[in-house]
Amino acid sequence: MAYRIEKDALGPVEVPDNVLWGPQTQRSLKNFEIGPKMPYDVIQALITVKMAAAAVNQKLGVLDKAKAELIVASCQKLLAGDYQAQFPLVVYQTGSGTQTNMNVNEVIVHMAQQINPNLPLHPNDDVNHSQSSNDTFPTAMAITASLKIPLLLKTLTQLRQTLKQKIVEFDSVIKIGRTHLQDATPLTVGQELSGYESALAHDQAYLTQLQATLLELPIGGTAVGTGLNAPAEFAVEMTHYLAQHYQMNFVPAPNNFQGLANHSGLNIVHGALKTLASDLVKIGNDIRFLASGPRAGYGEFQIPANEPGSSIMPGKVNPTQVEALTMVCARVFGNDTTLTFAASQGNFELNVYKPVIIATFLESCTLLTQVIHSFDVHLMKGLSVHPKRIAALMTHSLMTVTALTPHIGYSKSAEIAQKAQKEGTTLKDAALALNYLTAEQFDAWMDFKKMV
Amino acid sequence: MAYRIEKDALGPVEVPDNVLWGPQTQRSLKNFEIGPKMPYDVIQALITVKMAAAAVNQKLGVLDKAKAELIVASCQKLLAGDYQAQFPLVVYQTGSGTQTNMNVNEVIVHMAQQINPNLPLHPNDDVNHSQSSNDTFPTAMAITASLKIPLLLKTLTQLRQTLKQKIVEFDSVIKIGRTHLQDATPLTVGQELSGYESALAHDQAYLTQLQATLLELPIGGTAVGTGLNAPAEFAVEMTHYLAQHYQMNFVPAPNNFQGLANHSGLNIVHGALKTLASDLVKIGNDIRFLASGPRAGYGEFQIPANEPGSSIMPGKVNPTQVEALTMVCARVFGNDTTLTFAASQGNFELNVYKPVIIATFLESCTLLTQVIHSFDVHLMKGLSVHPKRIAALMTHSLMTVTALTPHIGYSKSAEIAQKAQKEGTTLKDAALALNYLTAEQFDAWMDFKKMV
Amino acid sequence: MAYRIEKDALGPVEVPDNVLWGPQTQRSLKNFEIGPKMPYDVIQALITVKMAAAAVNQKLGVLDKAKAELIVASCQKLLAGDYQAQFPLVVYQTGSGTQTNMNVNEVIVHMAQQINPNLPLHPNDDVNHSQSSNDTFPTAMAITASLKIPLLLKTLTQLRQTLKQKIVEFDSVIKIGRTHLQDATPLTVGQELSGYESALAHDQAYLTQLQATLLELPIGGTAVGTGLNAPAEFAVEMTHYLAQHYQMNFVPAPNNFQGLANHSGLNIVHGALKTLASDLVKIGNDIRFLASGPRAGYGEFQIPANEPGSSIMPGKVNPTQVEALTMVCARVFGNDTTLTFAASQGNFELNVYKPVIIATFLESCTLLTQVIHSFDVHLMKGLSVHPKRIAALMTHSLMTVTALTPHIGYSKSAEIAQKAQKEGTTLKDAALALNYLTAEQFDAWMDFKKMV
Amino acid sequence: MAYRIEKDALGPVEVPDNVLWGPQTQRSLKNFEIGPKMPYDVIQALITVKMAAAAVNQKLGVLDKAKAELIVASCQKLLAGDYQAQFPLVVYQTGSGTQTNMNVNEVIVHMAQQINPNLPLHPNDDVNHSQSSNDTFPTAMAITASLKIPLLLKTLTQLRQTLKQKIVEFDSVIKIGRTHLQDATPLTVGQELSGYESALAHDQAYLTQLQATLLELPIGGTAVGTGLNAPAEFAVEMTHYLAQHYQMNFVPAPNNFQGLANHSGLNIVHGALKTLASDLVKIGNDIRFLASGPRAGYGEFQIPANEPGSSIMPGKVNPTQVEALTMVCARVFGNDTTLTFAASQGNFELNVYKPVIIATFLESCTLLTQVIHSFDVHLMKGLSVHPKRIAALMTHSLMTVTALTPHIGYSKSAEIAQKAQKEGTTLKDAALALNYLTAEQFDAWMDFKKMV
Repeated sequence: MAYRIEKDALGPVEVPDNVLWGPQTQRSLKNFEIGPKMPYDVIQALITVKMAAAAVNQKLGVLDKAKAELIVASCQKLLAGDYQAQFPLVVYQTGSGTQTNMNVNEVIVHMAQQINPNLPLHPNDDVNHSQSSNDTFPTAMAITASLKIPLLLKTLTQLRQTLKQKIVEFDSVIKIGRTHLQDATPLTVGQELSGYESALAHDQAYLTQLQATLLELPIGGTAVGTGLNAPAEFAVEMTHYLAQHYQMNFVPAPNNFQGLANHSGLNIVHGALKTLASDLVKIGNDIRFLASGPRAGYGEFQIPANEPGSSIMPGKVNPTQVEALTMVCARVFGNDTTLTFAASQGNFELNVYKPVIIATFLESCTLLTQVIHSFDVHLMKGLSVHPKRIAALMTHSLMTVTALTPHIGYSKSAEIAQKAQKEGTTLKDAALALNYLTAEQFDAWMDFKKMV
Repeated sequence: MAYRIEKDALGPVEVPDNVLWGPQTQRSLKNFEIGPKMPYDVIQALITVKMAAAAVNQKLGVLDKAKAELIVASCQKLLAGDYQAQFPLVVYQTGSGTQTNMNVNEVIVHMAQQINPNLPLHPNDDVNHSQSSNDTFPTAMAITASLKIPLLLKTLTQLRQTLKQKIVEFDSVIKIGRTHLQDATPLTVGQELSGYESALAHDQAYLTQLQATLLELPIGGTAVGTGLNAPAEFAVEMTHYLAQHYQMNFVPAPNNFQGLANHSGLNIVHGALKTLASDLVKIGNDIRFLASGPRAGYGEFQIPANEPGSSIMPGKVNPTQVEALTMVCARVFGNDTTLTFAASQGNFELNVYKPVIIATFLESCTLLTQVIHSFDVHLMKGLSVHPKRIAALMTHSLMTVTALTPHIGYSKSAEIAQKAQKEGTTLKDAALALNYLTAEQFDAWMDFKKMV
Repeated sequence: MAYRIEKDALGPVEVPDNVLWGPQTQRSLKNFEIGPKMPYDVIQALITVKMAAAAVNQKLGVLDKAKAELIVASCQKLLAGDYQAQFPLVVYQTGSGTQTNMNVNEVIVHMAQQINPNLPLHPNDDVNHSQSSNDTFPTAMAITASLKIPLLLKTLTQLRQTLKQKIVEFDSVIKIGRTHLQDATPLTVGQELSGYESALAHDQAYLTQLQATLLELPIGGTAVGTGLNAPAEFAVEMTHYLAQHYQMNFVPAPNNFQGLANHSGLNIVHGALKTLASDLVKIGNDIRFLASGPRAGYGEFQIPANEPGSSIMPGKVNPTQVEALTMVCARVFGNDTTLTFAASQGNFELNVYKPVIIATFLESCTLLTQVIHSFDVHLMKGLSVHPKRIAALMTHSLMTVTALTPHIGYSKSAEIAQKAQKEGTTLKDAALALNYLTAEQFDAWMDFKKMV
Repeated sequence: MAYRIEKDALGPVEVPDNVLWGPQTQRSLKNFEIGPKMPYDVIQALITVKMAAAAVNQKLGVLDKAKAELIVASCQKLLAGDYQAQFPLVVYQTGSGTQTNMNVNEVIVHMAQQINPNLPLHPNDDVNHSQSSNDTFPTAMAITASLKIPLLLKTLTQLRQTLKQKIVEFDSVIKIGRTHLQDATPLTVGQELSGYESALAHDQAYLTQLQATLLELPIGGTAVGTGLNAPAEFAVEMTHYLAQHYQMNFVPAPNNFQGLANHSGLNIVHGALKTLASDLVKIGNDIRFLASGPRAGYGEFQIPANEPGSSIMPGKVNPTQVEALTMVCARVFGNDTTLTFAASQGNFELNVYKPVIIATFLESCTLLTQVIHSFDVHLMKGLSVHPKRIAALMTHSLMTVTALTPHIGYSKSAEIAQKAQKEGTTLKDAALALNYLTAEQFDAWMDFKKMV
């Protein structure tokens, strides 16, 4: 393979001739052969930050117009095309993301050289002007994260919409409730699903409330938060530019020292993701148990048969969408542990777990968005009920005896239920045998519709 | 020991003669010899719920005035005195808290019998009227949790107040910043502490935003959320009574099915507690490292010597308050795992991890409140700096070379820093030896005050 | 309250007149008003270490015989009586446990003064001779932890014993298997329970294998692991003494630097506890689902009715032992997060999360031991099956069609199952209608007993 | 794109003409557009299982010789070439891995058709003969996991080897110890590193002890663990074949019910991974702090300058290998939470979190193996010390006063240290000024070499 020689502060490096990156990228490639690549969303946000910085630096008079315009052109070309191969660095590199920041700086320079070979640019002095990895990388983290939450919220809204339709659809289907997994008093299927919808509504409200914290951009803090080497107006101008570009209400971080050294915002928003995941596990488990069977399970719900379920058992249909859903939730729980640990380990002016924090955060967002969509489309929209099975279970239940307690008290009601269970009879038979009420009273009090 | 015989739905039970509890408490005592007692805060909230329910039941015409007044009197006596010994049940019992709910019902009945032996009460039919454990217990959880957060917020405000004073006190102390633990560009001690304060301000804002979710009371849902056997106005009246009693803005849960089966609110608020704990670990670690020494550490900060530090090394002083702080945070991280798991495991109409959820939540609140107070009073208020040490480290730093880059570029600046480091000289010596600038330029550009 | 004045290296302290502790305990009491007390097991292990140290110091000629014997006498008295009130310090103190070590030293001195007022002892120079908190405290941790595991193993053995009896008891009860919660091919109840027993056998094997790592005592390392101020033979003699005393195969830690700064042993053994907890959740969930009903659940198992299950629903019986079990497991999962975090946070020559590590570890051991015992005695021993229900579910199952595939292939078998499910008929009806086999063939191939 | 029509039990499916997969793979592709692909290691293990099964089925007389040989040939071709694109399914699919099992079955069939178009094979009846996803998938999990651990152990051995060399190299470098981050008594750098090596040796021992549990293969359990439709000798023959093929001591799982429904083995072995990660965080933190500086940190260690550290601060060198290392550990901690949760959620005869369990387990193994190698090669091998800095810190330390306590007692020693610290003098000055010993005594007792 053909190489060219490039130099950085530590000396010369052989870089493959056909790539746009430079010596620092090349060093990182060699020093960090570990795990997956940095999410491309972060790269794109960084390119956008560079584009904004060039424009703002020009506006504030600290960068030549020609250089600024060339940087902008280079960034635009990179954002428009498919240049993912030029950003080969991994998540498990330096904890500040410096190597990815330099990868971006270097590629912008080389792309600029292709556009205009006559105007040399320096990756640090020009492209990185008024910036440090310490502020650009967390700014890119904040941008990327804040763009992902609306996608998740949209999918969540769609799932809630499906649930609302099902609530109406099953509004009058009275079924036996279950507490401690034991038969309890009745409710409607619509009511049961309304609990799911309400849980998701709560989770959506938390995310909606909290997402504003992701809009705080620490850009302008540069090396340690003081803003050394950046013009005073840099933060405000950058935030303005990026807000315009992304159509998001970005604001300058209220305190850049916190912005570089803590990741409280990603931490709490991920807390909302794990809360959502907790509720999704509950909903998923309910649905797969209520659809269990076809003959030896609860059998109240029917879910779409999307694929043959078994390689050995012919005709089996499994709740596979729920399985994907709850596996994603297991991952989100783990990601919360990772992110909490990482967020706690900042030292002094910097937290150096940035790449794993953002990679983990984005993974949770994306997996949840994808699996909620899949669960909505491939399961919830096709959910139906088995009215006969539901009615049969309802009729034979003993816990409807609870409706008698306002009339004959807890103790006598318990006696009726125990007698019916022991003798395998109905509540009515047991109640009349015990002489605690008349058949007319029983029928009047035992009105399922009034119970829900 | 003398026993009396009491009966419940499963038959007769021997209960010690000198206790106020009844057969179901006695059964639980025998069946669950596991771990610590149910937090007394939860018991007191349940007694208050019973008192409210008696009053509301009377108002709504479903309970005799005499009975209602007797229940209220019994509850008032229990709340006023020290009756903790009458509530001997543990956290690891039934997951609905039913046994504690019945313990409370039974003790209220026996206390009532002491007040008025002539008016018999039934623990289920009278004291538990219009209620189920399934709604009273999560209501008591919500009450207890929502009362704890303000205490934590108050302590947090006090710590932030101390930090604000220290920020002013150390506003002009310029020190070397550190990123990746390596010397970086300067900032003031005040700026550094402002990052801590800002992190806590963020965490406080999250808690403040989120605490409203704890005000939702699922009372009135009874057995499965439908409100069976409770009057229609019960939820609203109860919420009103409890809001008055506690002076808290309680509201009826928007959906009781969610209120019984999910604990999204406690889950997300605990997410804010773990976020706070993450930031506290960072702050604690910074302070103990910056106070490390006295002679072979960073030595920039001095913390109060509250006690001899070592049983073998005379004269040693240790950052013990930080150690208590970070140990609490380790516990809070674990509690978050517990709570997330527990919150995800509801089935159908009920989550049966309620006692461990509330016990864990309260433990986190109380430990954080206590340790933040301790850390504030015994460490932060007494924090001082070693100006000479700070200045010495500042003067010898190499990273102030960054201030030269706008003038001579990144590459030459790097060369200066590398030369100074290699030869053990000052930046100025190296810069002049390399002939990249004049002594006057160096002095003009190397102005620490401008750098912060 | 009456006070006496005692002095430590930081100056005079007022100590209540009626207590056995001294100034450092008093300082800690004031400085750490946070959370629960240090587990008494740790205190007792520390007293035993002190007793051993006095004897060994005498033997090695570094402590007067009279002093050594007085210390031993003091320790024996403390171990024999109930002196828990003399050890009032909390878990959330200094992270080395130094304050508890000094609490023990001080109480031993004061108790010694009561025994012999004429022979003064110094808490550091005499009682703590050849020791540091840095080696005594982790030694006490190791002792305490290694004593708890056998108790857990014993309870686990008992539960497995119960399971083995049940496996035999239900050996011939053929039931429908379930995968993905959907009806699958048959197995016996005995086989199903054998899976539970095998899981617990695996977990017990891990614990048994790993518990040896807890026998490594870092005693003799003193301040940083070098053994400064301790005689060369101290570690070996102490280990020998403690091994004799406790009848445990204690060994000197192979490396005291690791012994003070890492807690790998407690970390991995707790890893085995969380693995056990994972399997217990699975078993618990299975049992409560298989016992769900009585009329609208799986209804295959019957569990003991230990107490009335509901405050509102008469006659309800709940799987409360499983609920306690799984709540304990939720706690153990959280404790694993706490312990992992804490174990990772050592710095240089010491890990200062020791109290929270040991408190958390012991909590997991004790809760698991207690709840497994409770679950065994109050549930597993009384587990029975509903043979009729099991047979009915078995008979109507469709997945036994799998037994036909070796004869007619997967595709035709699937067709039979789908037809039967769609038309609500039996497999035999469907098979014959499709003409894929004869009635004789069906009966010959569809032999449930051969399937298990 | 051109399509062909293939049929499975649910009906016809359009499959792209140019792929080797069939209808069930195609359905899964459409139904699960979620996250990353199934690790290819798992696919390869499954292909190998299929190859083994064909051979064993033939040997046991349940599959035609011609078919068996064709399946073997197909598998060999797939294993030899690069057919990764034929296995496009994702981790977040059905929780049994059935779709990946069928993907493998289907591709083997189509590859066989290319080899011999005249001998049709059925993916279920032939390739999957005597198997179910329920036993092949966990068998592939066990194989894959057990192959990864030796790679990790090898890398760990290499890192320990490097540490052992460094222990010898720095054996006589006496340095100040630090406990609670405060100056303590001395030790050698070799001793300090020996603590790291011992921690890793412990972790390696745990892994070595525990890895045998991964050798248990549940093959032969088929659908629910009973082995329905598999010949009696199938498990033993398969294990024998796979053991030969992989040169690993595989054994038949002692209980297939446990083998399908629990993942205790992966759970506990991952527990050892998180224990290792805990110790790596400690080691990494120590090294980066001891290498902190160059001028305002501990500055005892020097680590290789692998790349420029900062995009803004010229000449900065950062401990980036440690940052990658500790980020990986953060991920491993999260993976442990994921795996523990997933392992706890089995129901009845199957755990349906299999894909996320194995993907997470493999990720931890691979990341740890890669990062330990990187850390060893790019940091540890190049670690050196700054002897002058170490000596200077040593000389000025106050905690060496501990060496005087056997001679003059704890209290007078404390007084000396406090006086020296307060007045900024040496211990000797303070000791002589207080008249507690002579200069000769001081020099004799204050012998650093004897202290270590």
